[in-house]
Amino acid sequence: MVLNLNDGGINEECGVIAIYGDNGVDPTSAACYGLHALQHRGQTSCGIAVSDDSGMRYRKGNGLVIDYFTPKILEELSGARSAIGHVRQGRKGQESSILAQPIVVNSRIGSLAVSMNGSITNREELMADLKQSGTLFHTNTDAELFINMLSRTCISGNMTGAVISTLAFAKGSYSIVVMTDKEIYALRDSSGNKPLTLGRLNGNWVVASETCALDIIGAEHYRDVLPGEVVRIDDTGLHSELVRGGEQNRCIYEYLYFSRPDSIIDGKSVYESRVEFGRRLAKVLPVKADMVVGVPDSALAAASGYAQASGIPQGDGLYKNRYSGISVSHATHGKPERGVRLKLNAIKDNVAGKKIILVDDSILKGTTSKWIVEMLRAAGAKEVHMRISSPPFKYSCIYGLYSISNSELIGKEHSSDNINAMIGSDTLAFLPLEDMIGAMGEEKDFCSCCFNRE
Amino acid sequence: MVLNLNDGGINEECGVIAIYGDNGVDPTSAACYGLHALQHRGQTSCGIAVSDDSGMRYRKGNGLVIDYFTPKILEELSGARSAIGHVRQGRKGQESSILAQPIVVNSRIGSLAVSMNGSITNREELMADLKQSGTLFHTNTDAELFINMLSRTCISGNMTGAVISTLAFAKGSYSIVVMTDKEIYALRDSSGNKPLTLGRLNGNWVVASETCALDIIGAEHYRDVLPGEVVRIDDTGLHSELVRGGEQNRCIYEYLYFSRPDSIIDGKSVYESRVEFGRRLAKVLPVKADMVVGVPDSALAAASGYAQASGIPQGDGLYKNRYSGISVSHATHGKPERGVRLKLNAIKDNVAGKKIILVDDSILKGTTSKWIVEMLRAAGAKEVHMRISSPPFKYSCIYGLYSISNSELIGKEHSSDNINAMIGSDTLAFLPLEDMIGAMGEEKDFCSCCFNRE
Amino acid sequence: MVLNLNDGGINEECGVIAIYGDNGVDPTSAACYGLHALQHRGQTSCGIAVSDDSGMRYRKGNGLVIDYFTPKILEELSGARSAIGHVRQGRKGQESSILAQPIVVNSRIGSLAVSMNGSITNREELMADLKQSGTLFHTNTDAELFINMLSRTCISGNMTGAVISTLAFAKGSYSIVVMTDKEIYALRDSSGNKPLTLGRLNGNWVVASETCALDIIGAEHYRDVLPGEVVRIDDTGLHSELVRGGEQNRCIYEYLYFSRPDSIIDGKSVYESRVEFGRRLAKVLPVKADMVVGVPDSALAAASGYAQASGIPQGDGLYKNRYSGISVSHATHGKPERGVRLKLNAIKDNVAGKKIILVDDSILKGTTSKWIVEMLRAAGAKEVHMRISSPPFKYSCIYGLYSISNSELIGKEHSSDNINAMIGSDTLAFLPLEDMIGAMGEEKDFCSCCFNRE
Amino acid sequence: MVLNLNDGGINEECGVIAIYGDNGVDPTSAACYGLHALQHRGQTSCGIAVSDDSGMRYRKGNGLVIDYFTPKILEELSGARSAIGHVRQGRKGQESSILAQPIVVNSRIGSLAVSMNGSITNREELMADLKQSGTLFHTNTDAELFINMLSRTCISGNMTGAVISTLAFAKGSYSIVVMTDKEIYALRDSSGNKPLTLGRLNGNWVVASETCALDIIGAEHYRDVLPGEVVRIDDTGLHSELVRGGEQNRCIYEYLYFSRPDSIIDGKSVYESRVEFGRRLAKVLPVKADMVVGVPDSALAAASGYAQASGIPQGDGLYKNRYSGISVSHATHGKPERGVRLKLNAIKDNVAGKKIILVDDSILKGTTSKWIVEMLRAAGAKEVHMRISSPPFKYSCIYGLYSISNSELIGKEHSSDNINAMIGSDTLAFLPLEDMIGAMGEEKDFCSCCFNRE
Repeated sequence: MVLNLNDGGINEECGVIAIYGDNGVDPTSAACYGLHALQHRGQTSCGIAVSDDSGMRYRKGNGLVIDYFTPKILEELSGARSAIGHVRQGRKGQESSILAQPIVVNSRIGSLAVSMNGSITNREELMADLKQSGTLFHTNTDAELFINMLSRTCISGNMTGAVISTLAFAKGSYSIVVMTDKEIYALRDSSGNKPLTLGRLNGNWVVASETCALDIIGAEHYRDVLPGEVVRIDDTGLHSELVRGGEQNRCIYEYLYFSRPDSIIDGKSVYESRVEFGRRLAKVLPVKADMVVGVPDSALAAASGYAQASGIPQGDGLYKNRYSGISVSHATHGKPERGVRLKLNAIKDNVAGKKIILVDDSILKGTTSKWIVEMLRAAGAKEVHMRISSPPFKYSCIYGLYSISNSELIGKEHSSDNINAMIGSDTLAFLPLEDMIGAMGEEKDFCSCCFNRE
Repeated sequence: MVLNLNDGGINEECGVIAIYGDNGVDPTSAACYGLHALQHRGQTSCGIAVSDDSGMRYRKGNGLVIDYFTPKILEELSGARSAIGHVRQGRKGQESSILAQPIVVNSRIGSLAVSMNGSITNREELMADLKQSGTLFHTNTDAELFINMLSRTCISGNMTGAVISTLAFAKGSYSIVVMTDKEIYALRDSSGNKPLTLGRLNGNWVVASETCALDIIGAEHYRDVLPGEVVRIDDTGLHSELVRGGEQNRCIYEYLYFSRPDSIIDGKSVYESRVEFGRRLAKVLPVKADMVVGVPDSALAAASGYAQASGIPQGDGLYKNRYSGISVSHATHGKPERGVRLKLNAIKDNVAGKKIILVDDSILKGTTSKWIVEMLRAAGAKEVHMRISSPPFKYSCIYGLYSISNSELIGKEHSSDNINAMIGSDTLAFLPLEDMIGAMGEEKDFCSCCFNRE
Repeated sequence: MVLNLNDGGINEECGVIAIYGDNGVDPTSAACYGLHALQHRGQTSCGIAVSDDSGMRYRKGNGLVIDYFTPKILEELSGARSAIGHVRQGRKGQESSILAQPIVVNSRIGSLAVSMNGSITNREELMADLKQSGTLFHTNTDAELFINMLSRTCISGNMTGAVISTLAFAKGSYSIVVMTDKEIYALRDSSGNKPLTLGRLNGNWVVASETCALDIIGAEHYRDVLPGEVVRIDDTGLHSELVRGGEQNRCIYEYLYFSRPDSIIDGKSVYESRVEFGRRLAKVLPVKADMVVGVPDSALAAASGYAQASGIPQGDGLYKNRYSGISVSHATHGKPERGVRLKLNAIKDNVAGKKIILVDDSILKGTTSKWIVEMLRAAGAKEVHMRISSPPFKYSCIYGLYSISNSELIGKEHSSDNINAMIGSDTLAFLPLEDMIGAMGEEKDFCSCCFNRE
Repeated sequence: MVLNLNDGGINEECGVIAIYGDNGVDPTSAACYGLHALQHRGQTSCGIAVSDDSGMRYRKGNGLVIDYFTPKILEELSGARSAIGHVRQGRKGQESSILAQPIVVNSRIGSLAVSMNGSITNREELMADLKQSGTLFHTNTDAELFINMLSRTCISGNMTGAVISTLAFAKGSYSIVVMTDKEIYALRDSSGNKPLTLGRLNGNWVVASETCALDIIGAEHYRDVLPGEVVRIDDTGLHSELVRGGEQNRCIYEYLYFSRPDSIIDGKSVYESRVEFGRRLAKVLPVKADMVVGVPDSALAAASGYAQASGIPQGDGLYKNRYSGISVSHATHGKPERGVRLKLNAIKDNVAGKKIILVDDSILKGTTSKWIVEMLRAAGAKEVHMRISSPPFKYSCIYGLYSISNSELIGKEHSSDNINAMIGSDTLAFLPLEDMIGAMGEEKDFCSCCFNRE
């Protein structure tokens, strides 16, 4: 799927990383490379905080990791014992650099730094309670709420207790890394909705949102942080302080769209998941066609699976402009169809005269799909059969992670037939939810609230 | 005196402003012009927060007021009912935009914004106490300490009580404006060390560090905030909530150097004070000379007074380059004598062959004075008699306002004769402290700690 | 192939565009979108010049098209009758914005603007001659040489004569658009080495380096400019002023690597050419394997062809980070292997345990290939068979277009077997030149000097 | 006078500098300091070109000297044998960095660099002739015209001949420095309208617009370049190649306003000239008053002279905000009276109750004067008598140097009495032209075209 920024569509939320230990590696440099690998999770701001015996230092601001972290800034942060970092996707109107993470504060328990991916659903209640006893909020972010909860609940400097306590109070979906002067904490809410994984590098520990951040620095995957687990890392190693059972509810959209295909989330390859979605999709409403075309980049793996199962060869039908990353928004001057044109073009010679199976991973408003179908027909496609490797997207996220409103979702109000007519495809089919869940294997603990609000 | 930034010399600290009411004026625009008039009090960062029934908005960052507040930013803040603003001088290594003011937070008593000029001397004690009960500090600033004290001490939403309470706990030297959703508070510690004044404009109220900020927007001077006074401004007008007597200790350096000469501080004209310092200086160690030369800009008024009292005509002997404002530091490439050359040049034709009385307002390290004397001699001056319109500067500020260390102050270790030899002048004289105090009039409530540590 | 900026490798040279006519379209806006589509041809600087009865206006500078051309700048240029534009790739040390194009000058024949892609090989001789009669050169660019030749050779204001004359004198490889106050000229040297194509949009004329620039604005492809042709466009339409026969010598690297796959160059689909290279490559040194993996992005089409011809399924084995565009260079801090890691990661689950055919489009220094092979082996690949869809790259470009030196090219000194050992692949094969030429069809007029210096 | 940028008033044109020789000094560094001293002559752009046996290097762009020439840029240019530099004041709409000087080109006679202050009045004729023989113009600047004339007229590499030839053809007012690979040329048109002076530093030669640029680097004044003189500097020393007699016509505005008061132009102190203007002004329409107030900064010297001659003491009545340099324009948001308020404030205590003689150096549109008079009255002045140390400014410059149009000049259409009524002063008097000329001494060769068009 091509994410059209003018859609006000799904926000890929955030990415976090932490490194403990400087054996043969500079934690700052490792954090920087790791954040670059996680850049797809957020492009608005980035930041790194580091800690050693001389205290904490940090730098954060707006921009891509490779732009913001110049050699000069990295030099200022080098030589520490541990580091945590963050990339953030700001929603429209929430792009101020004041909102960049990690949040770093001084407290009675020393310096604290927090990087967070996710959302606290009972935030209003918690914030009101903290305010009542005098807490001030400089921003409206869940990360600032979280760090204040840590401070409020901490007794006798027992930081482990404070983290566990906070986990007990904060509902929602979140993966968080906390850095103190001596330790790193990693925690994941009991639903396990957002990913968080552990790696090793030269005996040092790494925590990251996805395994691709381990790969880039040559770290080995150790295991994932468990849903409801609090992990503490210090000079004596890694300690699992708690695993609090709960109803697991891993976000299936991480497999479908958010995560990088080369990541392995909770033991399941993102790439393989997408291929299997495509294989199962091939069973739904099969048609004869000459070529399977995936919408680059995120639907290419599903198209590959579709081709495998259907026997119809996969081919390249669309070219994606690699210079249309994040700044394309202003260039469209309010004409959203230009957003698609700036990013995609049909490869005419390979499309002309063919019956096409067009595989995408989701339909939100439907406008992007309509323009792609039109583009393929203009390039000479004889038929365009749209296949979506997920069920109709009907509801906004129960965790509040993605900002699209229900009323904008074409899947909320319209039947598949209606949508087919609206986007102008010859036929349209979605992957049924049971197939999607089935593709994920035996564990049935996935959150599919955006499809069925359950 | 020419402030040499390479000296690590005196920091002109900060300036504050607040406007309540939008009768015929846009508070944002008025705050912006007022801050421009106060720019001499701080050039590192600036900011404005505004309030109306829709809540608070703010913008702050590094740069001069006329550079940072573009028409686009002013437009974003326009149309409010009240505004507070701040200009800040960051010491070396403390230039991060994260330290910009006003500080704006959400609290149980709604939104709060604070702009502060000055220093809390028992900050460690207060901060430790607040931390103990869970408060987090995002920065190390006194303004953040102050706003947390407001929140901590506030009971039942009684903001007036909180401001009074904070005044009771926080020792030091400070002038502060606070904006809530409905009110503006202005307060000054009981020493009255830092200035704070009140003005009226179309029935609206203005609070500012100096009267020059009233002049620029056409506001009339109403009165000064009293030492130890808490003033509250709301829809019903201005209310003096408290005047807490204390030992007054107004900063005499405000008259000598910090404030603009066109300002009137606590009823006393800065310009007239400087002229009177010069008049009295003329009685000390009188010599025959052809011309009185003031070091531009801050010593010109004292030179004028010297000329009046001595009968020796004042003349221009030094030209100050008006493009050497704040960015001269890097251009010297570590050769501090260049700092003076980049700013000053002798007007040879008017200096050659003359016996010169050179009037400056202070000597810190002595290096600047030495270079100026050399420059005048090279331009042909027959004699250079240095006259300083203040006593030797011997001690750093008891309030911690200025960052120069005692060991760097030439006046700490050396006699006047020694200094004369070191800077190469023919004679050297300082204004005795009793004359300086005497020049200020009948009230003897001035802080002269930098001269005598009393 | 992943272009490693630290390699000092191939520079994708430049892209040009021109629009004549404002019927239902703003030429400035169309030029801007077209340049965005051509962005892959140069990312250092961009510029647009426009003309109408009030004269010429232009804006140019460093940066990507979507970054530099803000709505404000586009507004300044809007409302013209014709426009020409340029994107430029600056070699290392040649990034100054002074070198941005188009070049715009005033001359006896009015205003002139020129955008150029390519290189004049007898530049020293021509420049010396022009200097001899007094011409000054502000830069060392061929575009400035060209515009001076236009001016020097123009007699009686006959611009068509000047363009033809210049074509006769300037040897080398170039595609150029010229804008006068009333006309647009498009010309291509007789070798036809660099592409240049014509399109129509609402009756207006478009000239562009590639057809993808036509597609983005919805223009129809009309035909290509012929090798050795001078085209003139004015109010009366398009006029072919000259076709000067010559030995055609189209750059085969445009098909292999430079151009976008969705472009059609001189009637030949870039995408189809790459697929055919892959098909023919499958006949060379066939091995049994489980999966064909293309190096994204430029070698994916060749991998597709290899899969078709070999019957071995194509799969995704490498993930390319889409945020590693142009600024990755500084992030590697002099460690070039990081350049590859910042861009590529193996998709472990899809690679592990498999015998891989790894298809890339070329090998320059060999370092990138070595790291990719290592990465796949570390991900568990049992075998890695490297297949290159072009012959060994042995010589730098005779037209001087690409800056790599012969001594750095691994293909110059080493046999295929040696290279196989150096990069650590199990087997290695290149596409023979005759197959490459054969794949291009019946016309044998391609330049393959980088392979065989003929 | 306070130059109101919204006035579209007088542009201080440009400043030039050149250094030949590296004996104990880095020419680049010396040029940079010299340009800083000349910053008052132009704040839009700056640049330095350097030459040594390895050829020429240069850097130029928009911004103040101390902002643009960072240590990094200076380092790139360091270590040369000679340097030339330029500061430029761009008129409204002419601020593009493309117009920055020096202009540096390659030609048949090697590299050439030119920095120019002034204007060529027969430019259209010369430019047309050069165009006719094929010359292209990248800009519309006289400097580019000049450098093309050098190239065109040069025969057999005789650069001295080319410079003399160009001097013979180019009419107008200009001071120019030219750098070749081996030499520096300095020339001044025969009217001597613009200043140009020579200095020595450690045996090296310096050429600069004003002596203040010599002072800042410690160079000794050697002599001025004569009107109509061509000076050549090379390894063998300084050579006067030609003095071409002509009607001298030195710009009296240089003494009144443009030059720095610490400069000595053609043997006449700028400061002393201004003082003498003031002394003579005191004889015109004398009135009783309490204090003479000069408008800072440029009229302070004249006020000093007025005070000397009248016996009325000089005092400070206006404070000038030192942060209102060049960026004040946007802050006024189209309300020009704010431009004055942003820069000036009355020193009330020193003004209140007094009869004031207000001395300024000129009146252009009259709006600034009106606001200053109002400001002093609002501050309590009992009377304000305006005295202008020059005649009414009636005509724009015959050399085209200053861009104000005749119709905007209040002195063109209105009598002194009318102007007095319009600006609201009690009385108004101008210095008669004969007194102004008389003040300059015995030589009557001054251009006063702006006063009398003669």
